[in-house]
Amino acid sequence: MKAILLIAHGSRRQASNEEVVSLAANLKETMGDNYPIILASFLELADPLIPAGLTQCVEHGATEIYVVPYFLSAGRHVQKDVPADIASWQEDNPNIIVHQTPYVGASNMMFDLIEQSVKDYNC
Amino acid sequence: MKAILLIAHGSRRQASNEEVVSLAANLKETMGDNYPIILASFLELADPLIPAGLTQCVEHGATEIYVVPYFLSAGRHVQKDVPADIASWQEDNPNIIVHQTPYVGASNMMFDLIEQSVKDYNC
Repeated sequence: MKAILLIAHGSRRQASNEEVVSLAANLKETMGDNYPIILASFLELADPLIPAGLTQCVEHGATEIYVVPYFLSAGRHVQKDVPADIASWQEDNPNIIVHQTPYVGASNMMFDLIEQSVKDYNC
Repeated sequence: MKAILLIAHGSRRQASNEEVVSLAANLKETMGDNYPIILASFLELADPLIPAGLTQCVEHGATEIYVVPYFLSAGRHVQKDVPADIASWQEDNPNIIVHQTPYVGASNMMFDLIEQSVKDYNC
């Protein structure tokens, strides 16, 4: 069974973390058929941390997890910290397939999203 | 003449800042007809800072500027720091119209973007 795990940085401001949890919940509406498990986790400062998030996916039945870094730039967090957390967890869970997709800021759709934001503002 | 000014947080890692500058440059390809001036600026840690970015837009001929916060959550930066910088600059430039659009993380298209990221990964 396929899962998507959003990974955000995590914030001391709880409302920011809840935005990511809501995003994961709303994604289920459009992607839930193909990815029955869609959860959020955090690199630091908020729970669940990445290893706990991966484990939650497995507890829900996931055998293949797509990790989506909810970051805008390819800094140290995306390039080193997130992969390190995944690799460490993977050592203890060798039978689960984990993919790390590009971070959201790398998406070609970011152009369209910004264009839409400006257009929506004018409506 | 209309301008778009992306505002990112700014990073000590120069490549992250350059990602935002490239994003602004690439946006010109799709939005340049309606928004002839599209530039990037930073809340802190990188140049141009927000007031300098707004001034650059005016120097290029802008009379109306759409400020797009390139942030994923509605934290203090989006809610207080960016508006404060804009308001302060606006006092010295009362004839320029400045709009602050929603931050990119608030976009309804973020669902589609994440969906596309997972799909692209599988291609």
